[in-house]
Amino acid sequence: MLNPASDAFLEALAETLPADTLRPAAEAYRSDPRGRWTGTGSTVALPRSTAEVATIVAACNAARVGIVPWGGGTGLVGGQLLPEGPAPLILSLERMTATRGLYPAESVLAVEAGTILAHAQTQATEAGFLFPLSLASQGSARIGGLLATNAGGLNVLRYGNARDLTLGIEAVMADGSIFHGLKRLRKDNTGYDLRHLLIGSEGTLGIITAASLRLFAIPARTVTALLTTPSPETALRLLALAQKRLSGMVSAFELIHRTGFDFLTETLPDVTQPFATPPDWSVLIELGLPSGLNADEAMASLYAEADDLSLVTDGVIATSQAQATQLWRLREMIPEANRRIGAVSSHDISLPLSAIPDFIAKAPAALARIDSFRINCFGHLGDGNLHYNVFPRPGKTRKDHEAQREPIKTAIHDLVDSMGGSVSAEHGIGRLKVADLERYADPAKLHAMRAIKAALDPNGILNPGAVLRASGI
Amino acid sequence: MLNPASDAFLEALAETLPADTLRPAAEAYRSDPRGRWTGTGSTVALPRSTAEVATIVAACNAARVGIVPWGGGTGLVGGQLLPEGPAPLILSLERMTATRGLYPAESVLAVEAGTILAHAQTQATEAGFLFPLSLASQGSARIGGLLATNAGGLNVLRYGNARDLTLGIEAVMADGSIFHGLKRLRKDNTGYDLRHLLIGSEGTLGIITAASLRLFAIPARTVTALLTTPSPETALRLLALAQKRLSGMVSAFELIHRTGFDFLTETLPDVTQPFATPPDWSVLIELGLPSGLNADEAMASLYAEADDLSLVTDGVIATSQAQATQLWRLREMIPEANRRIGAVSSHDISLPLSAIPDFIAKAPAALARIDSFRINCFGHLGDGNLHYNVFPRPGKTRKDHEAQREPIKTAIHDLVDSMGGSVSAEHGIGRLKVADLERYADPAKLHAMRAIKAALDPNGILNPGAVLRASGI
Repeated sequence: MLNPASDAFLEALAETLPADTLRPAAEAYRSDPRGRWTGTGSTVALPRSTAEVATIVAACNAARVGIVPWGGGTGLVGGQLLPEGPAPLILSLERMTATRGLYPAESVLAVEAGTILAHAQTQATEAGFLFPLSLASQGSARIGGLLATNAGGLNVLRYGNARDLTLGIEAVMADGSIFHGLKRLRKDNTGYDLRHLLIGSEGTLGIITAASLRLFAIPARTVTALLTTPSPETALRLLALAQKRLSGMVSAFELIHRTGFDFLTETLPDVTQPFATPPDWSVLIELGLPSGLNADEAMASLYAEADDLSLVTDGVIATSQAQATQLWRLREMIPEANRRIGAVSSHDISLPLSAIPDFIAKAPAALARIDSFRINCFGHLGDGNLHYNVFPRPGKTRKDHEAQREPIKTAIHDLVDSMGGSVSAEHGIGRLKVADLERYADPAKLHAMRAIKAALDPNGILNPGAVLRASGI
Repeated sequence: MLNPASDAFLEALAETLPADTLRPAAEAYRSDPRGRWTGTGSTVALPRSTAEVATIVAACNAARVGIVPWGGGTGLVGGQLLPEGPAPLILSLERMTATRGLYPAESVLAVEAGTILAHAQTQATEAGFLFPLSLASQGSARIGGLLATNAGGLNVLRYGNARDLTLGIEAVMADGSIFHGLKRLRKDNTGYDLRHLLIGSEGTLGIITAASLRLFAIPARTVTALLTTPSPETALRLLALAQKRLSGMVSAFELIHRTGFDFLTETLPDVTQPFATPPDWSVLIELGLPSGLNADEAMASLYAEADDLSLVTDGVIATSQAQATQLWRLREMIPEANRRIGAVSSHDISLPLSAIPDFIAKAPAALARIDSFRINCFGHLGDGNLHYNVFPRPGKTRKDHEAQREPIKTAIHDLVDSMGGSVSAEHGIGRLKVADLERYADPAKLHAMRAIKAALDPNGILNPGAVLRASGI
């Protein structure tokens, strides 16, 4: 059972820290981007160093006060706020933005957890490298939160998820001890991989304070194309062909359904669309190629071969950076168009690649048993990751379907689960999907997770109620 | 405190299993490749299915009988045998070699844990793919053991360690419950990553029974070269240059010291050597290139640029498969030459890439304080992984240096640790390096490891004494 972060506790804690480390928490620390929750906790701690983080965590552990770690506040599943229970201390590492080291000979950048993703990207670029983690919120998301949630994004197909980009982490454990794991090693088989356990644990097992990140060579040339394809099945065959021919050079492979173009037309008519009639299915492909490989030829020969196999029906291959940007803008504005239409229910799911056509064929029938909807199915096809979002028909609003939100979610998630998929591909569990985890997770995994949580955070102070249900918060 | 696998226990267990599941353990199950230990345990369990593994583990857990999981028996750190304490039950999954599924559209192969690595490679090849995990013992090492130890090998630079090649695992936990995690997902953020925790835990947290493995496109063309380079520092600059120019296409980058060639001359004179005078330092580079990229041109232009920067002094670029095989044979026979010379002490270490020249400069002085030795420093430079092996001078034998083995190991490991390196890059901890782990591991990590072990295997039955010290075995 946790105690609230009382005035007495906060005053005593403040005495052990430099002035101005604790502050009243502005509203931003208690809200989320989709406006779904309001968090509790009146105070935010803003430490400047790992040692200060350790002091704060140790004090909270001793007093049984919950800590809600707050990264950039961009999470979509409520991992960054606690809507109920004894007031926690909010912990933001936004002051910890130092670069611990840039190692060009190793292709490594080590930064503190408060570093904003876009700043890490810029540092890499200025040193002549690519840091490939890339997602819509990169201007505000911070490295600590991105690792805590094992962020995905646009380049997972080629470079992996956030965990795959991380050689080492430094973290503060629940008892306030510091895990000095900021290694820069490609191989290290000395015991259990605490790094991989903490990454993706959403701040429930430790507070990541710094990370050493892998950098990559910037491709000599990038080619972008938007190709139309008859079906999800042909889209997948096109992906397999591209991987076969251009192994390791396909940076992005994004699926777009006609509904995405329709939504853009309806809500953002200024976005230039390349096709007079929106195609049912299209894919946005980006290739990043080394020097020595003729980029135009590579895309043209892929297109020609795909055409022979009837995998493509039409397409635009960008011939300038401006045109490439325009194609990417289409993809990037779809979430904004979705917001303007207003989803009844959004699903961040993943499936084994070969199950995707079957899922896309079956899901509409499952929804039709509930009501009539518009579906925008798009996402990172290369990763098997679909954003399968359900919208009202014209003339209706999301409010009209309020009561159907749960049944819709259950219908989609049940289908995903029955096909060996995941009900949270990249957004995590947070507090939104705790019940989903309980429903769909393998029981042995859930049992192990609870045992690990109890072992590493016996007082349950770290992000209470996120990922795993907490009693008495 | 564990109980021995008594006759009564084994008889009762045999009753719950199909005939011939338990057998007297042949000597092979109680020995290791370097002949360092003799294991205890008179019985080996040879289950045919995951359900049978679960039955066995549950029975051992109930009776507090230790289990020593045995993969292919190729481990070098004694993880596969228990030299002391109450006799354990040896558990081999060698009968579990089924293919759970081959998914060409997903580039995935799911196999049971008893599958021999070479067989998995062949299956992949026959389906038109590459399974890149590759190491000397691939003809006998099995997938379960390779994952339990997070095996490395020759292609880590490009494709990652065993963990990076694994999308999902099925495993039996200490209480006999089955973790059904044989997923084939590229993105799955539903809770703690049990897969990454079990991989590399050396059978101390669960028994991996099956895995879904990532397959890759076979490069259209492979180019191999042996280039001489002035120093480890220029070797690293050559690596950085190759990564810059041919990002993601450098499959191997192996360092060879003159001592390696000398050892071959002394013990295996039939191995053809390309240089009249063995160079002080050379690197074996393999590029795997896609179609469309001129392979000879790629290697030639890399060589030319490296030459301009004085990073190479000479070299052989293989012009035929036979010549490439001959170059690889040099590298592959060095461990055999080492065995014939007879090492006083072998070290499987890794370092941050940029620390390697400094380490190679400093280590001989640390050893010279102990005695006079020959050093063979070779390994997977691209991964920062050196096999830094210490040999007697001519006229002496390893026996003469017996008493110096511990001081040598300590001198090397202390230096590695002081430079942010790892004292076990790819071989694991097993039983050989338990004291090293205690000496060098971050205390917070060690504390967390012990807490996790106690939480997931409260009776301590799984591979007792491996990785973490066990009391009373």
